[in-house]
Amino acid sequence: MIKSVPTAGQRTAGRPSALPRTAGRASTTTLETVRDAAGQVTSRVRRTVLPSGLRIVTEQMAGARSASIGVWIGVGSRDETTTTHGASHFLEHLLFKGTDERSALDISIALDAVGGEFNAFTAKEYTCFHARVLGEDLPLAVDVLGDMVTGSVLDTHDVDAERDVILDEIAMHEDDPDDVVQNLLADLAWGSGPLGRPIAGTTGSIEAMTRAQIQRFYRKHYRPENMVVSVAGAVDHGEVVKAIRRSFHRHGFLDGAAEPIGPRAGGRRPRIHGREGRISRPFEQVNVVLGAEGLTRDDDRRFALGVLNTALGGGTSSRLFQEVREHRGLAYSVYSFATQYADSGLVGVAVGCLPDRLDEVLEVVRVELSRIVAHGITADELERGKGQLVGGLVLGLEDSASRMMRLGKAELVYAEVLGIDEVMDRINAVTLEEVQEVATHVFGRPELLAVVGP
Amino acid sequence: MIKSVPTAGQRTAGRPSALPRTAGRASTTTLETVRDAAGQVTSRVRRTVLPSGLRIVTEQMAGARSASIGVWIGVGSRDETTTTHGASHFLEHLLFKGTDERSALDISIALDAVGGEFNAFTAKEYTCFHARVLGEDLPLAVDVLGDMVTGSVLDTHDVDAERDVILDEIAMHEDDPDDVVQNLLADLAWGSGPLGRPIAGTTGSIEAMTRAQIQRFYRKHYRPENMVVSVAGAVDHGEVVKAIRRSFHRHGFLDGAAEPIGPRAGGRRPRIHGREGRISRPFEQVNVVLGAEGLTRDDDRRFALGVLNTALGGGTSSRLFQEVREHRGLAYSVYSFATQYADSGLVGVAVGCLPDRLDEVLEVVRVELSRIVAHGITADELERGKGQLVGGLVLGLEDSASRMMRLGKAELVYAEVLGIDEVMDRINAVTLEEVQEVATHVFGRPELLAVVGP
Repeated sequence: MIKSVPTAGQRTAGRPSALPRTAGRASTTTLETVRDAAGQVTSRVRRTVLPSGLRIVTEQMAGARSASIGVWIGVGSRDETTTTHGASHFLEHLLFKGTDERSALDISIALDAVGGEFNAFTAKEYTCFHARVLGEDLPLAVDVLGDMVTGSVLDTHDVDAERDVILDEIAMHEDDPDDVVQNLLADLAWGSGPLGRPIAGTTGSIEAMTRAQIQRFYRKHYRPENMVVSVAGAVDHGEVVKAIRRSFHRHGFLDGAAEPIGPRAGGRRPRIHGREGRISRPFEQVNVVLGAEGLTRDDDRRFALGVLNTALGGGTSSRLFQEVREHRGLAYSVYSFATQYADSGLVGVAVGCLPDRLDEVLEVVRVELSRIVAHGITADELERGKGQLVGGLVLGLEDSASRMMRLGKAELVYAEVLGIDEVMDRINAVTLEEVQEVATHVFGRPELLAVVGP
Repeated sequence: MIKSVPTAGQRTAGRPSALPRTAGRASTTTLETVRDAAGQVTSRVRRTVLPSGLRIVTEQMAGARSASIGVWIGVGSRDETTTTHGASHFLEHLLFKGTDERSALDISIALDAVGGEFNAFTAKEYTCFHARVLGEDLPLAVDVLGDMVTGSVLDTHDVDAERDVILDEIAMHEDDPDDVVQNLLADLAWGSGPLGRPIAGTTGSIEAMTRAQIQRFYRKHYRPENMVVSVAGAVDHGEVVKAIRRSFHRHGFLDGAAEPIGPRAGGRRPRIHGREGRISRPFEQVNVVLGAEGLTRDDDRRFALGVLNTALGGGTSSRLFQEVREHRGLAYSVYSFATQYADSGLVGVAVGCLPDRLDEVLEVVRVELSRIVAHGITADELERGKGQLVGGLVLGLEDSASRMMRLGKAELVYAEVLGIDEVMDRINAVTLEEVQEVATHVFGRPELLAVVGP
């Protein structure tokens, strides 16, 4: 699976900070304890760093019956060259194909048999394998995931069969107007640079990739110091650390000593110039994204951007939904988004409409963007935007999968897990001035326009 | 939103039974109480039937912070004529456009401001408006939903603006290969009969529909005796009944006295003949569904069909996934499905592949279907299939939205809510013989073949 299309109202939940160090031995820290009114612990977040540099972050949730586990590797399409383009995603597929101990069928059977959800996705900056199971089946999930991630055999026949599957997946994305327009936007923003390339690779790069190249890519990036295991739900931290030591230990994976690799360095910001691109496709609809350079992941203004994004196009009460859909009936789907990477980011507005509405849609969206740049948002919109972000955050806390995702991503890309309360405080502290400042900053930048349709 | 594409491993959770009667006064029954090992109540399901015939089913979940509410109306596209084709879905959209008390913006603001999820969908046999909020915001959600459902103004200008939105939505579905192939399959199975028509209507029927027609449709079907409100999570049954009486009472909606309308009568089964249909579209992939007539909703063999569906194409360890994707690399996406309606049903296998793989895909799928008809499944597959269904059921219980969906749909279409334990018992009781019998029954029937692609 590929995680390439940003969703409306995307949030982040952490910030850069000092990285935990192993100093050659395992260390465990409690990061957060939440109690209810009666003083009972409802949630506890703990982190253990193994001497090999592997990080394990868990959140024990009182009353949970399920447990969600994710194995996060700090590698994605931006770590590829033109010859390894698509290797992260190819590898993600191949890891399901078998180890010395398990065939592909054995891997599938193990988690299917207990009704667990079991999947993986590849993004530009990381790869994640994840499962959701009943708490009692967690040891099984740890065992299967550890085996897959550390001991994949990458059999030649499997590489070729899976190559065909990926070529088919690429064709499927080509038939999805959303995917086509988002890939075009990335191309307009970052050109042929690593962030600009589609995650799955191209037909050409996938056809040309050899098993040896994939094998080298695997050995280079799948290392304990570049990996985080996050678990949330019905979990005992000590038990899970033991199970991970057992499961990831095979193939000598945890033998070395290393410090965890910190969050991806920002480096030099790629310059994003105003550009326009069109791809002609015989679709019924035109899909259009109007975007601009956004913020980097460590930018403190991202909380203000979150509120702005919500007010602009994050729900049915947002300006864009009201103007484009409610008042004018111009489109069924309209939303805004903000994505952040280590050294770059994008903001944008995505609309799908009938071809003869395109000009009017673009005009309405541009008017709304200039209004928000000129006047910011209202006090009501500020309060509603905060309510929407905080409410969504709290509603997400019931779900072990959401918590696992939050923990794993935060640990990998921010090096530290921010408490929920801290995130809420940051959202609630956003002012009208900050929102207008960030609106002017991002939407005052040169425009990117991606259009796909007939 | 439209709910038209069946998902893999779809399950049902109830059976026909005597309908509760009001006898002119409100009555409340406790349907199920679940306790943990320590004797604490972890879940309680209660039903109140108001004198007007409105049914309210709640499930109080210990420890939940969220509450999910759904308003279910027993009307969908199969209740339409050729002139009202698309009216159920059109109405679903229009109910968000405002009442005497609230504008469309007021409706959106109310739930956006608390971070709630808020949406609706239309199916062939029912329509559902639903929200997920923090428990403390449940009265707000009840108030907004009650107002929307009972007091929509159906303003002429809104009808025209929303008509354009729906035409755009239809265009979007035309660009989605999955939607196109599933609509084609329904057309092959049921022709121009009510079940065979696409839920959203056609460009022609939507362009021609008048406000007066929609208004009549609304008054005819949105009646208390044809409606179920289901709520799960952090909920107090008595409080919610009071809130619903208050909120649904405006516009005199609850004034009359009526008995709840029972589940849709089965009537005469439409005959499904073997047919083949192709739609030419310039997509990269070919999307194909190979199907046949399935079971009706009240067929006791549906539990065996669930196990069969799981073993055949319900997960990555299933026969189809293994044969089509793992061994041969023929497709990225392959799954089987089973959908049930009051008087008909469909089973099928859906695959998206590159055009030059189509013949091989069809051959492999047909071989697997004949193998399963001839020999059934293995004892291992039976056990895994049961584990997968039961595990998935238990994993779904943590989520207030899943429980609300289960309650509401079961109450509306089965007239009674089966306890989870009862559903599990039915799944666990399935035998190898029953699976083979149902396999022979459904896949021995004439073949439906729907193909969409270049």
